Amino acid sequence: MTRFAFTIEFDGTPYMGWQRQGHGPSVQQSIEEAIERVTGENVAVHAAGRTDAGVHALGMRAHTDIEKAIEPFRLMEAINAQLRPEPIAILTSEIVANDWHARFSCIGREYVFRIANRRAPLALEAKRAWKVPQPLDADAMHEAAQRLVGLHDFTTFRSAHCQSDSPVKTLDRLDVRREGEHVLIEAAARSFLHHQVRSMVGCLAFVGMGRWSADDLQAALDAKDRAALALNAPPDGLYFVRAIYP
Amino acid sequence: MTRFAFTIEFDGTPYMGWQRQGHGPSVQQSIEEAIERVTGENVAVHAAGRTDAGVHALGMRAHTDIEKAIEPFRLMEAINAQLRPEPIAILTSEIVANDWHARFSCIGREYVFRIANRRAPLALEAKRAWKVPQPLDADAMHEAAQRLVGLHDFTTFRSAHCQSDSPVKTLDRLDVRREGEHVLIEAAARSFLHHQVRSMVGCLAFVGMGRWSADDLQAALDAKDRAALALNAPPDGLYFVRAIYP
Repeated sequence: MTRFAFTIEFDGTPYMGWQRQGHGPSVQQSIEEAIERVTGENVAVHAAGRTDAGVHALGMRAHTDIEKAIEPFRLMEAINAQLRPEPIAILTSEIVANDWHARFSCIGREYVFRIANRRAPLALEAKRAWKVPQPLDADAMHEAAQRLVGLHDFTTFRSAHCQSDSPVKTLDRLDVRREGEHVLIEAAARSFLHHQVRSMVGCLAFVGMGRWSADDLQAALDAKDRAALALNAPPDGLYFVRAIYP
Repeated sequence: MTRFAFTIEFDGTPYMGWQRQGHGPSVQQSIEEAIERVTGENVAVHAAGRTDAGVHALGMRAHTDIEKAIEPFRLMEAINAQLRPEPIAILTSEIVANDWHARFSCIGREYVFRIANRRAPLALEAKRAWKVPQPLDADAMHEAAQRLVGLHDFTTFRSAHCQSDSPVKTLDRLDVRREGEHVLIEAAARSFLHHQVRSMVGCLAFVGMGRWSADDLQAALDAKDRAALALNAPPDGLYFVRAIYP
């Protein structure tokens, strides 16, 4: 038995999310079935994080155990060939120690959220960004975002379906910057609550529109109450960027 | 009668190209039909350039004449609403002089060609870039590209279907640069021959792979013979960026 680690890019649009579901296609199922077609083995693929329906990945990390003797590069090429034409690509493949775990060994996760700050419909970025027509003040968003950095009870920014033991998390970084018509929000933490990034982005958009001050954002955080949330941003703009390991 | 000018973004993937065709969907037809649904008028929309099937636009310019009294902003919003869910968006709309012509008044056109220089399939950029797995030397491509800048007979880089009176054109700019895993090629000229950008990109890719020297590119140009072409790049990576007017 050999443990393989992969870096995976996917367009989340056609999937119910990373995790295998009874009621629709998932990234996990597509990859597991591609591996089965390559190796004849019925494997489980474990990812660094479970993404929601419509959320994308630039560099998800995952691992699986395979009995068949196969080179990592050949395995990657064969899986990619089997995945075609699905919008999932294995970018890297290597052998790791048998106790390396994509989820439990992961000590950091990074996301980027992409806002298209424009009025016109998105022709080239449909389902790849959140269109916000009101002019956004990215500097004000960045300044307010710093209120969320650090150790906090993020109950306000947590989905009712969150399975985390505790709403207390340390947010390492939340940076907002403008790039032309786009506003990009980068978030880094050891781990995130369910919907945390999208909920933080929704509130930061309120700040960017001038509907909320940084103090309003602070009050929402302090409320520790989901009802204090301004808005949960849609999944289209969210990308899992990378997972960090020791 | 009022003449309106538009800036248009589109994903060229589902279209046979800009121009109305008997045998398939076109960007022109979709926009003309959207305008007809808004105004009740059967109009012709003229663009700065005709793009091929699969070629995209970030900022195509076009004009049309409309009898109905309507504000440019309202017209744009109404056309965009009618275009939904097609991947075409009107970005700007204004009234122009009756002798302003999107094609004939245009004195400059700019394209960018996007190469994804990687081995893995494109999950997020499928149909939005040309995947070239061989490592490309972008500096060598840029240096060789300068041989094509200036006034030349571009017969080698011209499609057999080109309707231009002359193969002699002045290429104002051809810049190649690397951005991470991407190689971007920017081309600017008063006008281009049919397939000229894709043909230049195909030959530059040969240079980037080390299969051609700058002298080989020069020889292909000097041959003034379509048979001397290395390769015509696919349309997926090509974007019409902007049209310039006096």
